Amino acid sequence: MGLVVQKYGGSSVADAASIKRVAQRIVETKKAGNQVVVVVSAMGDTTDELIDLANQVSPLPAPRELDMLLTAGERISMALVAMAVGQLGFEARSFTGSQAGVITDSVHGKARIIDVTPGRIKSAIDEGAIAIVAGFQGVSQNSKDITTLGRGGSDTTAVALAAALEADVCEIYTDVDGVFSADPRIVPSARKLAAISYEEMLEMAASGAKVLHLRCVEYARRFDLPIHVRSSFSNNQGTWVIKERPVGDDMEQAIIAGVAHDRSEAKITVVGVPDRPGVAAAIFQTIADAQINIDMIVQNVSAAATGLTDISFTLPKAEGKDATNALQRVQKEIGFQSLLFDDTIGKVSLVGAGMRSHPGVSATFFAALAEANVNIEMITTSEIRLSVVVREKDLDNAVRSIHTAFGLDDSNNEAVVYGGTGR
Amino acid sequence: MGLVVQKYGGSSVADAASIKRVAQRIVETKKAGNQVVVVVSAMGDTTDELIDLANQVSPLPAPRELDMLLTAGERISMALVAMAVGQLGFEARSFTGSQAGVITDSVHGKARIIDVTPGRIKSAIDEGAIAIVAGFQGVSQNSKDITTLGRGGSDTTAVALAAALEADVCEIYTDVDGVFSADPRIVPSARKLAAISYEEMLEMAASGAKVLHLRCVEYARRFDLPIHVRSSFSNNQGTWVIKERPVGDDMEQAIIAGVAHDRSEAKITVVGVPDRPGVAAAIFQTIADAQINIDMIVQNVSAAATGLTDISFTLPKAEGKDATNALQRVQKEIGFQSLLFDDTIGKVSLVGAGMRSHPGVSATFFAALAEANVNIEMITTSEIRLSVVVREKDLDNAVRSIHTAFGLDDSNNEAVVYGGTGR
Repeated sequence: MGLVVQKYGGSSVADAASIKRVAQRIVETKKAGNQVVVVVSAMGDTTDELIDLANQVSPLPAPRELDMLLTAGERISMALVAMAVGQLGFEARSFTGSQAGVITDSVHGKARIIDVTPGRIKSAIDEGAIAIVAGFQGVSQNSKDITTLGRGGSDTTAVALAAALEADVCEIYTDVDGVFSADPRIVPSARKLAAISYEEMLEMAASGAKVLHLRCVEYARRFDLPIHVRSSFSNNQGTWVIKERPVGDDMEQAIIAGVAHDRSEAKITVVGVPDRPGVAAAIFQTIADAQINIDMIVQNVSAAATGLTDISFTLPKAEGKDATNALQRVQKEIGFQSLLFDDTIGKVSLVGAGMRSHPGVSATFFAALAEANVNIEMITTSEIRLSVVVREKDLDNAVRSIHTAFGLDDSNNEAVVYGGTGR
Repeated sequence: MGLVVQKYGGSSVADAASIKRVAQRIVETKKAGNQVVVVVSAMGDTTDELIDLANQVSPLPAPRELDMLLTAGERISMALVAMAVGQLGFEARSFTGSQAGVITDSVHGKARIIDVTPGRIKSAIDEGAIAIVAGFQGVSQNSKDITTLGRGGSDTTAVALAAALEADVCEIYTDVDGVFSADPRIVPSARKLAAISYEEMLEMAASGAKVLHLRCVEYARRFDLPIHVRSSFSNNQGTWVIKERPVGDDMEQAIIAGVAHDRSEAKITVVGVPDRPGVAAAIFQTIADAQINIDMIVQNVSAAATGLTDISFTLPKAEGKDATNALQRVQKEIGFQSLLFDDTIGKVSLVGAGMRSHPGVSATFFAALAEANVNIEMITTSEIRLSVVVREKDLDNAVRSIHTAFGLDDSNNEAVVYGGTGR
């Protein structure tokens, strides 16, 4: 007998038939002897439809009211899921974020969870009922206004509730079978990972893997709460996101978790920057003041003849316009020559907790790219990640080459063992 | 400077264009120097669509969950109205029934308001904002569950909030210009009433007039709160529902408010009932036990030869099947001969507070029906109402004849003065 928190996304509750299937799964978990708390997103495209309605009424709707509007979406799905569970003969009670005790700050549209006080949820499951909770929403601590949590909000609700209830596991149901060693649409031989560590999952998510949002993984890591990512369309085991990947039979921990890629970024190059202290700071302060997050940064070696250098950085494509505008306004002050904007790049990342203790990983990585004739434009590394920027057209090829080079293809279940020096 | 509560029904907020028009009207009321509280229903057919979704998931959805589901409807409309008001440069804050302090009992689907504690609404309007409140919904006192108020719920929310806030007026916006002396679809010459008393409005509503629900008028009468029923599509004055219709210039209060009709009832006749004490009680206890409300009752004079009589009563058509089934089960016990069910009847009612002091009303009434060749099947009276059941095919004709006979047609603004004996 355990306490299981399950989260179903919008595609899992898109229509009446899907909701009935989800209800069946919920009831099976209950029948297996568990206490069950379910977190749901809004049905299918409901949120987009509501945003469209809002835009018809006001081009810039008040954030408080937009949150009030959008939270109607989960209210509908949670009530329907509760009815469907009731129809199967089990008691279900739905709760809004506010009723579930999801207390947030007052930043409408992207509120952060401050506290979770799930007294009513606890009572409901202790009385034998199944609790169905609205994801993505909470209530602000000070003004008692309804808030939404922004991107990844429902996953975060599920993990936060699971942590507060000291659940045994948080199951995140999605439309794929789990976390894969690479995107199966690009690498058909990608394999489903049985387990991945929080750190690796964070790096994968930060590097473009879409299956879990950074925020919910951070939350799970903080509370050491196991996440089980699995498909709502099958009964297969999915991927466990846990503290450490278990050691295999051969006492050899797999070195690499997987290969992530990201097409959502663009590159800005600031050309002809005076190579003196404080100039880089001025550039990145300008970007920060414009509320833009940047990812990778590269500074060329200064050309001795001119005393000028180039600085390149990557950022979300959608923020490229704002960033170039902000930089152009300070061009004279900083004294750079010109700006280049390039939105035809791609990023490929190799992630694995084993990298930190295994030399030779970077050599294999770069050899694979060289053999595939892929040119590297930028490089960054962390303890458990190695990322490069390449031309967008080369991205798929790069992902496949690296995936194969590290023995991740499904036909080859042996981990590659590295020797030699250097990363 | 006053405090105005406005209520907009589903047809007034059916789409983005309607919502913008409503916002304009709200802002005008605010600009005129009033504090404004707005109660909204769900947009157009939203409630029906949600019920349809519920039925796809469960043929008999849990009432608690159905309330949770349906309250999403007003959540959407109130947020959109608040956005539209904001777009016009005025601050608007939306509140759910729960946030507005609408406390109810726990009867899901038709909860009764127990208390209204509009602290947040009061704060919002005192701070200069316009408060937009979800109609039709509240929160149960004991379990803190979301409830809905059932039919006429949004009107009742508006009147209850207006009473609790000690508003100067509760404006009920609808798709007609006000309360008419008869249904204009039947009587094209029907005139809009400038005012009608609570008592008259209650009798009109109970007799089939649809513009206001019985329940909200009862609430307004209890707190002596003026209701102004008016169209959201024009700026015309509508009808004031108040304690007493004002006395005209000629010191002669108009006798009659209007003519109401009702096609929703059926008639059951219990034939050959033994004419002895307790038999009528047994019949109506059977009906009451089946949770069926009846309206008119007529018992024939007993035939001396047989000691048998007939008892007829009217009830909502939809409950006819349940009533006949219930009676058939006790046929032997009660000893009646047979049941007749007739759903081709209509009821026409004349309503006016002046009736109680003016004799001759009933004589004029029956003369009008006789002249129109309409046969009368049942009669009931109250202090301010006279109702008859006729054949459904005769109903329109009966309404028009009576309307004309009492000088209610728009071309004739003189009240008819009665003399003679009788009512």
